[in-house]
Amino acid sequence: MDPYMIQLHDHGNLPSVLDVHVNIPGRSSVPGKMKGRKARWSVRPSDMSNKTFNPIRAIVDSMKVKPNPNKTMIALSIGDPTVFGNLPTDPEVTQAIKDALDSGKYNGYAPSTGYLSSREEVASYYHCPEAPLEAKDVILTSGCSQAIELCLAVLANPGQNILVPRPGFSLYRTLAESMGIEVKPYNLLPEKFWEIDLKQLESLIDEKTACLVVNNPSNPCGSVFSRSHLQKILAVAARQCVPILADEIYGDMVFSDSKFEPLATLSSNVPILSCGGLAKRWLVPGWRLGWILIHDRRDIFGNEIRDGLVKLSQRILGPCTLVQGALKSILHRTPQEFYHNTLSFLKSNADLCYGALAAIPGLRPIRPSGAMYLMVGIEMEHFPEFENDVEFTEQLVAEQSVHCLPATCFEYPNFFRVVITIPEVMLLEACSRIQEFCDQHYHCAEGSPEECDK
Amino acid sequence: MDPYMIQLHDHGNLPSVLDVHVNIPGRSSVPGKMKGRKARWSVRPSDMSNKTFNPIRAIVDSMKVKPNPNKTMIALSIGDPTVFGNLPTDPEVTQAIKDALDSGKYNGYAPSTGYLSSREEVASYYHCPEAPLEAKDVILTSGCSQAIELCLAVLANPGQNILVPRPGFSLYRTLAESMGIEVKPYNLLPEKFWEIDLKQLESLIDEKTACLVVNNPSNPCGSVFSRSHLQKILAVAARQCVPILADEIYGDMVFSDSKFEPLATLSSNVPILSCGGLAKRWLVPGWRLGWILIHDRRDIFGNEIRDGLVKLSQRILGPCTLVQGALKSILHRTPQEFYHNTLSFLKSNADLCYGALAAIPGLRPIRPSGAMYLMVGIEMEHFPEFENDVEFTEQLVAEQSVHCLPATCFEYPNFFRVVITIPEVMLLEACSRIQEFCDQHYHCAEGSPEECDK
Repeated sequence: MDPYMIQLHDHGNLPSVLDVHVNIPGRSSVPGKMKGRKARWSVRPSDMSNKTFNPIRAIVDSMKVKPNPNKTMIALSIGDPTVFGNLPTDPEVTQAIKDALDSGKYNGYAPSTGYLSSREEVASYYHCPEAPLEAKDVILTSGCSQAIELCLAVLANPGQNILVPRPGFSLYRTLAESMGIEVKPYNLLPEKFWEIDLKQLESLIDEKTACLVVNNPSNPCGSVFSRSHLQKILAVAARQCVPILADEIYGDMVFSDSKFEPLATLSSNVPILSCGGLAKRWLVPGWRLGWILIHDRRDIFGNEIRDGLVKLSQRILGPCTLVQGALKSILHRTPQEFYHNTLSFLKSNADLCYGALAAIPGLRPIRPSGAMYLMVGIEMEHFPEFENDVEFTEQLVAEQSVHCLPATCFEYPNFFRVVITIPEVMLLEACSRIQEFCDQHYHCAEGSPEECDK
Repeated sequence: MDPYMIQLHDHGNLPSVLDVHVNIPGRSSVPGKMKGRKARWSVRPSDMSNKTFNPIRAIVDSMKVKPNPNKTMIALSIGDPTVFGNLPTDPEVTQAIKDALDSGKYNGYAPSTGYLSSREEVASYYHCPEAPLEAKDVILTSGCSQAIELCLAVLANPGQNILVPRPGFSLYRTLAESMGIEVKPYNLLPEKFWEIDLKQLESLIDEKTACLVVNNPSNPCGSVFSRSHLQKILAVAARQCVPILADEIYGDMVFSDSKFEPLATLSSNVPILSCGGLAKRWLVPGWRLGWILIHDRRDIFGNEIRDGLVKLSQRILGPCTLVQGALKSILHRTPQEFYHNTLSFLKSNADLCYGALAAIPGLRPIRPSGAMYLMVGIEMEHFPEFENDVEFTEQLVAEQSVHCLPATCFEYPNFFRVVITIPEVMLLEACSRIQEFCDQHYHCAEGSPEECDK
């Protein structure tokens, strides 16, 4: 006799939550060893989900943002170059997807690390004599976020630590802490165009340090490290034997007066996992096509780290096969003008924005050299009404309907970040509103010898 | 003076691995607190990557597969309906992607849980009075694999356990063990068309059981549970207060003589996370568009599990936005004939394959009712040359160039799995080769009273 059938028929309908019991006296037909299972519902989220913390979400969601109803909202807060429609991707890029679709060859599963042919294309595109690459050195991922996740997951155990830039992209912390990995921020120096405080960086390294995260060009700073600064970073890594996770998603997105040097081209010594993708340079962040480039000429990672990355890639498989199938054409057919036009636009906007904000008493913008951002220091002593950057940017929304991210989101209080991908006319309007806002709230610092001519 | 500059110039070139030292006597200019960091390279893969184990890869890679050079290879091993080109997706599906591309609206970041409009489409497509759904109940994911990963990650902590079917899809174990979650297999009964051994299932539940994974229709079995069997499974979950992860990626892929009942339609009591996606029914597994449907009418998951899923989705963001943008058209414009034709083809192949293999002495196929698979028992006592299913399928490749997955990959020795998506003529050829193989290796069981008429 089937006790399960009886069980069902006994109850007629399924028991309600409150009706559920396990060890009912005299009901010996209830089967199974109970082993102390409590017969009431209690479903709690895991520690991992509790530890997954997105500071941008937390700070932005808790901001009391009510825009001025008399002014249209201008969002300088979103690090997505596509939102205003002024920066479409190149027609060759969309055509490449259509060709991949029409071929009918890219609907099935790819290997978890990506199609071999697509990995070959990425390898040959980024190959150079100083940092050679083959297909085996490339892993395709679901966006640069997954690339970073896999790198952290293979390099660090819970209880170890990683070094991340401050100010810096919050995802490093979000991912690391969700995995029980400690985060130690090292300082970037605004007075040195956001170069790393190398001494402080090195002082953070201990025997539990699993990797050093270097983000160049930088989000949120828009800074681009010089060759000599990169060499000094590499010297620290080499001296301390710490591998590097190079977040180079903004690689090649530098203005004409700067040069992007892939970190791996400057060292044959330090093992480097370089993360990148289509998101920024090709202006398609939603397509989720990222990659890891493994640079390990001294065989320090060895097969074990490579195998570890492959194994981790099998957990959820890689990026959309249509985009993988289009990679060859995207990398080879996108015209140089496309890249050039994007950078000209960004450089022009950066100059306009820097110029406008630098002229405002109380603000100290730092001139960017690449990426899509500009950081602006707030001389808080001149804005005594506001406790910090969060209150400052909150009130800026309330009065002027201009939304900038407070740099507290990047663990760097008393700055805010401006996204410079928006149309020029909107950017200028935003700057003029920021000026009006600062004019209205600026106070001469107490005891200041200078004359306050406001 | 900048010690880093000196350091570099001192060395000329960067030091080689063997040259790197930290505490060089008399070299007091070396900065940083050392805290015992060992100055030699030792980069080890993490415990998580070491624990990430894909049994299919391990077993298949270690198989000594050398196909018979005189026979073309027929792979019945790959659970990808697209590999033979005979099952293209519908033209409406590819057109939907082109429309999304041409709109230019789907290149940017979507929210990490997916576009609200796309989540609404999935909700309304799967909504029914017995299991209502709104956009807030849908999370879009990078394929069904990520859906399963997020569900396990939110429900279980390291040290807890989950219950998974045996035979079953190996990803549950791969994901769980990588996260330190224990896996307890419950038995499916071939003699009952792979229904669950409910008594054994319930005996496995203890206070550390975080969830019950139910896969219906089943990979690798091709079985489809009846309504009454599903109700019995739900009764166990309700009695023991264990939430269910329903892997329903093969939902609606059942033959005309069966009916697929979404688990959530049969219970208003048990909280269920149902995982699905475009992969199988729309024949585009590479596109990586999956989803989680949250069924929780008694508010047992509550906001905490929902928030946990949202937070976890922010770690790597969701699926490719082009496919998200195409979802509405894919769900609404794909003609019924497309689904019908796929299922007719699968049903016809299943019947042919079942009939052919059932006639072979020594084999015991189990007739499937859906999905894309058929499991075949091997009466090992009649094939004494082979130790197990791995050796049997290995030799089948060597002699007949027919590749089937040994069911040891699904923790179910002495069976093998046949994928029935291949063209009919190839399937028949494969069956006839399997027959030849079995004829050559079949032995009457020792001491068998029956006459061996081979």
